[in-house]
Amino acid sequence: MEGFRISEASVVFLKKPRLKEPILIEGLPGVGNVGKLAAEHLIDEIKAKKFAEVYSNDFPPQVLINDDGTIKLVRNELYYWKGKDKQLIILVGDYQGLSARGQYMLAQAILDIVEKYGTKMIFTLGGYGTGMEVEKPRVTGAATHIEIVRKLKKYGVNFKDEPGGGIIGASGLLLGLGMLRGMKGACLMGETAGYIVDPNSARQVLEVLTRYLGLDINFAKLEEKALEVKRITERIKKMEMAAEKSEKEDLRYIG
Amino acid sequence: MEGFRISEASVVFLKKPRLKEPILIEGLPGVGNVGKLAAEHLIDEIKAKKFAEVYSNDFPPQVLINDDGTIKLVRNELYYWKGKDKQLIILVGDYQGLSARGQYMLAQAILDIVEKYGTKMIFTLGGYGTGMEVEKPRVTGAATHIEIVRKLKKYGVNFKDEPGGGIIGASGLLLGLGMLRGMKGACLMGETAGYIVDPNSARQVLEVLTRYLGLDINFAKLEEKALEVKRITERIKKMEMAAEKSEKEDLRYIG
Amino acid sequence: MEGFRISEASVVFLKKPRLKEPILIEGLPGVGNVGKLAAEHLIDEIKAKKFAEVYSNDFPPQVLINDDGTIKLVRNELYYWKGKDKQLIILVGDYQGLSARGQYMLAQAILDIVEKYGTKMIFTLGGYGTGMEVEKPRVTGAATHIEIVRKLKKYGVNFKDEPGGGIIGASGLLLGLGMLRGMKGACLMGETAGYIVDPNSARQVLEVLTRYLGLDINFAKLEEKALEVKRITERIKKMEMAAEKSEKEDLRYIG
Amino acid sequence: MEGFRISEASVVFLKKPRLKEPILIEGLPGVGNVGKLAAEHLIDEIKAKKFAEVYSNDFPPQVLINDDGTIKLVRNELYYWKGKDKQLIILVGDYQGLSARGQYMLAQAILDIVEKYGTKMIFTLGGYGTGMEVEKPRVTGAATHIEIVRKLKKYGVNFKDEPGGGIIGASGLLLGLGMLRGMKGACLMGETAGYIVDPNSARQVLEVLTRYLGLDINFAKLEEKALEVKRITERIKKMEMAAEKSEKEDLRYIG
Repeated sequence: MEGFRISEASVVFLKKPRLKEPILIEGLPGVGNVGKLAAEHLIDEIKAKKFAEVYSNDFPPQVLINDDGTIKLVRNELYYWKGKDKQLIILVGDYQGLSARGQYMLAQAILDIVEKYGTKMIFTLGGYGTGMEVEKPRVTGAATHIEIVRKLKKYGVNFKDEPGGGIIGASGLLLGLGMLRGMKGACLMGETAGYIVDPNSARQVLEVLTRYLGLDINFAKLEEKALEVKRITERIKKMEMAAEKSEKEDLRYIG
Repeated sequence: MEGFRISEASVVFLKKPRLKEPILIEGLPGVGNVGKLAAEHLIDEIKAKKFAEVYSNDFPPQVLINDDGTIKLVRNELYYWKGKDKQLIILVGDYQGLSARGQYMLAQAILDIVEKYGTKMIFTLGGYGTGMEVEKPRVTGAATHIEIVRKLKKYGVNFKDEPGGGIIGASGLLLGLGMLRGMKGACLMGETAGYIVDPNSARQVLEVLTRYLGLDINFAKLEEKALEVKRITERIKKMEMAAEKSEKEDLRYIG
Repeated sequence: MEGFRISEASVVFLKKPRLKEPILIEGLPGVGNVGKLAAEHLIDEIKAKKFAEVYSNDFPPQVLINDDGTIKLVRNELYYWKGKDKQLIILVGDYQGLSARGQYMLAQAILDIVEKYGTKMIFTLGGYGTGMEVEKPRVTGAATHIEIVRKLKKYGVNFKDEPGGGIIGASGLLLGLGMLRGMKGACLMGETAGYIVDPNSARQVLEVLTRYLGLDINFAKLEEKALEVKRITERIKKMEMAAEKSEKEDLRYIG
Repeated sequence: MEGFRISEASVVFLKKPRLKEPILIEGLPGVGNVGKLAAEHLIDEIKAKKFAEVYSNDFPPQVLINDDGTIKLVRNELYYWKGKDKQLIILVGDYQGLSARGQYMLAQAILDIVEKYGTKMIFTLGGYGTGMEVEKPRVTGAATHIEIVRKLKKYGVNFKDEPGGGIIGASGLLLGLGMLRGMKGACLMGETAGYIVDPNSARQVLEVLTRYLGLDINFAKLEEKALEVKRITERIKKMEMAAEKSEKEDLRYIG
């Protein structure tokens, strides 16, 4: 593409699929990478196809190095999937915008695309940081319309009693800006410690989403990842405890 | 609104009321939330009607979660009120702009609206941080023209003797930019500690404003809020004193 | 001015004087406020007249409160003066731009104005922070062309031996950007501690400048200000020494 | 140039050389200034000629002072060189852009220029911070295409086994953005401590590059610089050791 330039949001279409009212699902990096893990697992399981790349001069000025020594410019990606009675567009990526302005511009560029496909429903996926380990992460929700709140409650989604919270970044903006275009949607947030990637929380979020969408997918790979994270964190804990114990014993020798 | 996009200041009109030279009153978040509390109380008491929402890509990229689980994109709001001989436009909202540039753009967008309605007078409401608790908060002022300074002094407004202060944010910009369009106005700042919301200070500010405007409103709800804040701060103080005392007693046992 | 809006650099002309090749002199806030003090003193002494105000959405979003309780939006100001054989435009103001981009835009807006008047020479005034008190501040220089370096040396201006320094802000940009438009100029920097306003350093800078320009002005007011600053700093020093002494005596009682 | 204004990337051509498919080589300031040292040495040795200067309002708002007291506005510079069967464009400069957006704009402005000359290949040079001194710095690489990875391995370039790294700034962006225009290229990163300029690492990088390009240049000046840096760091180390020793001896006197 001669003279190709990147503005605040530049979309490169790899193909232009015919889609009818696809549901938009967002899973960009965030707290515990819950949304990203969930959306990427969904793409893998339903074999969604990439059809567009989104570049932005509000992303970090950076390329990432792949395993084979080649590079890629940081970007977001759009995948599509056509089911029997449902179609999906899934948004994943390396980064969110660095500035407030960039985040608004990027969310609006995504909405411009899906609006043309007739999208009426948006699900944004993310993590809800609790600051401590959660054995059985609940899924907390927020929605554009009260009837969606009611419906999600039936799927076991938790809605906070105290007011005053907020949803920062693409997970919030796509819904807030989508509402202004007449779209509906909800954010599904998996409880997570917040200081480590959390495939277990991603699984809970994805379970609610797939049940809501009537999709039947396999969670084995996400469970494997969750076990691996658990193994690593437990090894670290043991090392810390051992270090602590040996310190105490050292002190005993002194005493 | 298909294709709706948010720039540095995008106004969505819910209705277009006919107004004649309305006085603009601003109460956005700030020190002690004095201005916000005052303006919101005024809206409630005189039953002003919302007629416009202002969105900005310089606001935090965020939605807020309402009590019922639904969301709203962060925004500012404009209300209007038609009295017998006075009309008001009241500006309230969730946030001020994040950047200098955004704040200028937002203030100018507001002035564009009220200028079309023929606004000639602006009151901006805010807090004046003193760093310590104030039992009887005075109202400090600053104005675009010396005759307004003189008039406000008659209403008990305090004007500082030492030079060199400044008014940061919308409370300053609306006046400074309004002056350049031939408007007049004043900023009313209630003394406040600065580290806690201060309905008592908001009440003092609103009392001056309503007397100046010849409005007669009820302050009961603001007084209730002030009492609640007082109860909470006193409970915290008692807990701190108790903690201190028990610490001292612990030390006595050691001695 | 109905609908008046402020961009990165918006000039409001109060009058449009006829000028011929005026020399531009810049004295905006900076290290020790040396440039600002010098330029403001020059304006007062030669009775230069204000002809333009420069506003910018890259200035802090703020109004300043005057002594009489009225306000002014932060801005820069341009003054002119017509001598027998020399004409001057003097740039002073409350702030410099907050961002790199804003500073470039503001400097370019100033150059746009003076270029139309045929300006060929620019003097920028500033402070050169040494980190310690300087009894007899030298004036350090930097210039656009080697012949100006040579000429300024004859006026006692010091040029550093070690390379690698820089001039940040308007004092640097006006010269650097002016060069690209074919203008010449120099920066005169008075040595100063850097942590206090320094009228004495401003005087040294202004003495070099006025001798170079063949102007004869009175420095009494600048000397008064310098004495006042000296009195204040000495009082503070005495208080610190007294505090130190009493601390030592307290220690003696303990011993 | 009357009315000359600097935008995010403004190119001033000093001459317009006829070039055919020149290879772009980038060496802007970065970790250990490895890329800058390498590119500047290459320019000196092959006697490349400057043909363009790039200014940007995203560079620091600053002029640099030359040894003779004259100034220059901070900028990037483009040099060209015509060999028998190869032509080069070399990019060096004082700074990279301050913001993400500015860095994208600057990289795109450079690509606009070289694309017109038919550039198909880009080498970006930089340092790879290891956090400790490296006696024999290896050259680590990353490339746009797998065949370039393979070819560079034959020249002794190291490719990391673990995934997940990134290349920040112009060295990454020129390749990432160049790819989107159909260009190929690689980044050569010399291992370096990261806290000191490293001519030795620059030499290793330049050796790989010149062998790849079939150029035969002299490294004497770079070796001299490397020795000088070594002398200085060793002197500092000795001073630190002496200071440590005398401290220990002081302690002995006490004991």
